[in-house]
Amino acid sequence: MKVSIIVIGDELLIGQVTDTNSGFLARTMRPAGWTVVDVDVVPDDNDRIRHAVAAALERADVVLTTGGLGPTKDDITKQALMDVFGGELYRDEAVEANVREVVGKRGIRLNSLTADQALVPTSCRVIQNRLGTAPIMVFERDGKTLVAMPGVPFETRGMFTSEVFPMLMSRYAPDINLRSDVVQAVGITESDLAIRLSSWEESLPTFLHLAYLPQPGLIRLRLDGSHTDRAMLDVEMNRRRAELITLVGDNLFAEKDITPAAYLVELLGERGLKVATAESCTGGSVSAAITSVPGASAVMQGAVVSYSNDVKTGVLGVAPEAIAAEGAVSAPVVEQMAAGVARLCGADCAIATSGVAGPGGGTPDKPVGTVWICILTPAGKLSWCSHFPGDRARVVDRTVMTSLVKLCTAIKKL
Amino acid sequence: MKVSIIVIGDELLIGQVTDTNSGFLARTMRPAGWTVVDVDVVPDDNDRIRHAVAAALERADVVLTTGGLGPTKDDITKQALMDVFGGELYRDEAVEANVREVVGKRGIRLNSLTADQALVPTSCRVIQNRLGTAPIMVFERDGKTLVAMPGVPFETRGMFTSEVFPMLMSRYAPDINLRSDVVQAVGITESDLAIRLSSWEESLPTFLHLAYLPQPGLIRLRLDGSHTDRAMLDVEMNRRRAELITLVGDNLFAEKDITPAAYLVELLGERGLKVATAESCTGGSVSAAITSVPGASAVMQGAVVSYSNDVKTGVLGVAPEAIAAEGAVSAPVVEQMAAGVARLCGADCAIATSGVAGPGGGTPDKPVGTVWICILTPAGKLSWCSHFPGDRARVVDRTVMTSLVKLCTAIKKL
Repeated sequence: MKVSIIVIGDELLIGQVTDTNSGFLARTMRPAGWTVVDVDVVPDDNDRIRHAVAAALERADVVLTTGGLGPTKDDITKQALMDVFGGELYRDEAVEANVREVVGKRGIRLNSLTADQALVPTSCRVIQNRLGTAPIMVFERDGKTLVAMPGVPFETRGMFTSEVFPMLMSRYAPDINLRSDVVQAVGITESDLAIRLSSWEESLPTFLHLAYLPQPGLIRLRLDGSHTDRAMLDVEMNRRRAELITLVGDNLFAEKDITPAAYLVELLGERGLKVATAESCTGGSVSAAITSVPGASAVMQGAVVSYSNDVKTGVLGVAPEAIAAEGAVSAPVVEQMAAGVARLCGADCAIATSGVAGPGGGTPDKPVGTVWICILTPAGKLSWCSHFPGDRARVVDRTVMTSLVKLCTAIKKL
Repeated sequence: MKVSIIVIGDELLIGQVTDTNSGFLARTMRPAGWTVVDVDVVPDDNDRIRHAVAAALERADVVLTTGGLGPTKDDITKQALMDVFGGELYRDEAVEANVREVVGKRGIRLNSLTADQALVPTSCRVIQNRLGTAPIMVFERDGKTLVAMPGVPFETRGMFTSEVFPMLMSRYAPDINLRSDVVQAVGITESDLAIRLSSWEESLPTFLHLAYLPQPGLIRLRLDGSHTDRAMLDVEMNRRRAELITLVGDNLFAEKDITPAAYLVELLGERGLKVATAESCTGGSVSAAITSVPGASAVMQGAVVSYSNDVKTGVLGVAPEAIAAEGAVSAPVVEQMAAGVARLCGADCAIATSGVAGPGGGTPDKPVGTVWICILTPAGKLSWCSHFPGDRARVVDRTVMTSLVKLCTAIKKL
């Protein structure tokens, strides 16, 4: 199934709002084998919306629009869709009742603008929007379907998952099975990995495709397959996934799609271990990454950001002589930070970071981007010096990513 | 000037990556009065890229593409652009030298795929990409310009600001002077502020324009001006900016474009004060925000992430009775956390947070989104309970923003 998404709203084109709905819709439809063939972001302009709808109906079987359905006068999607599909506005009683219910739940007064959300085109079928006041409108033409949805992510996501996509699935039974497997690699550049995988990649049957999804410090390899024969697809995917894992070899990070932080929380949980972090240059970002994972509280004890040397010595117990002798960005200091925070917080594992994130603070010996990292597990400690490129934010991001990846790897070996 | 943006990459259409580049480009060009007329997200597919380029050249004066310039074979933008603009590949020595330099700085080996980034079409002009290996390519046709840029946000943003946009400005608007001033407001909704500023906004001359840039908890007002007469532009901008500040009145947060974290670092520095944070639900994100500011080390002492109650009591000195009596998410606990971390780290000011970020952990009394925050300054402490909407990440973001804004406001009153 080919799907075209039209994202409507001036606020997106001036960069005030970032469109995250289209990504959500794509991820939701993908397991069913539905492909988003393009996303078109257009302004609240009748001509442009009509033009985009016409082009999308050419390219795709299903067209999804988001946005432009609010009660204010800059939202004109309803009129533009009537200009395409015909019909005229009438006041729908079921929609009116839904609008009253939604407004009532929010504890606000129903004004005339919002009441007019109950006006819908005669040319569409309505799906009641239980999460907002804008009715979801379904138009059909020549066996193709256009669904106009609100742009508020909370409403779009909730209603698409619970009502819109199930409706579309029952309308267009999928004739193709699809599967995606992810294998993650570390310690290798994208191009070196591409060279290693080149001949294997060329040997793939036409119904399988390998995609490289590099992030700083980590490469996600996604093997996508689509076929009408589910059993055949699974046999081939299983075989090729195993071959890919073998080829990645020592560079394997994970055999599934999971963030390093979520993987760490999972690995710690499986082994009944607790973690803490002692951070200088990362300023709490390693801890923030770990605690961003739901359920992190089961394995995360705490963190100390020792930005000043007083906190390194006074709170974490780093020896002042170590700082005096080798500087705060050094092996002995990160090792003592890691040991100190594990002791202080009652943790079995720890990450410690100390580096020069820039833009200031660099020296010929320790230029900007120089970072010492220590990871501590019940099996012992490991510390090393990295040199990361880029600005302050990039140096911090790379340090966070690298330290989480290395701690995962060390815990897997326990 | 009309600008059309084409975002290229399969990873965007399957929802694995969110496009944030187009919003950045729009925000950067807007002060010059350049309008993004649409954003088209297309796959790594030759036909689709060529079709999108042709349509964009119809609609706009300038076309910007991002993505699809990596060294691997799924990146085919270069070939698609040659199919549109003609030319053939040649090995450009200057690009080759740049690729070597970029790769060298990253401390990695140059392989053949990356070396081939130096192959560029004879039909384009190159802007050296100092931040990555993919050359930026400038094509011209019938007075219109297409610039193909890499998709890595760090590269796109850095190179667009420093090289691409200045080149485009000197090409299309060499006589125009630009100026943008920002005034920030807190404690008022966007619509209430719009009503207050309405008649003033209508009185602005045509070469000035006010843009509302709301973020959760903060509204940035950007006054953009463009005129051929530099002196006249400055006189009018100065006068109107002063009027705007007066109208914002008690809701003024800052008279310039600065993040709450950077403003906090500046205010602390001016007053010779030090800060520390004690964080539970934010997990280090407040500290990470402060330390993301270059030069933060002059005012930031450190932080304790007290995710477990043991760390709250053992490290920060929170009374176990306070946790037993009122729970970890309560006024006495955040107040003791703030006092504890200030004492421990030798700071004059502190932020403490404790809340239910979700998705688990909510109770009827303290549902998900309930957050207690305490700010501490030499003038005393202030603690309050907020209820933030949204998921785990949104609750954390709002807590970080609110706590930084409140501490800035308190320090300004010292």
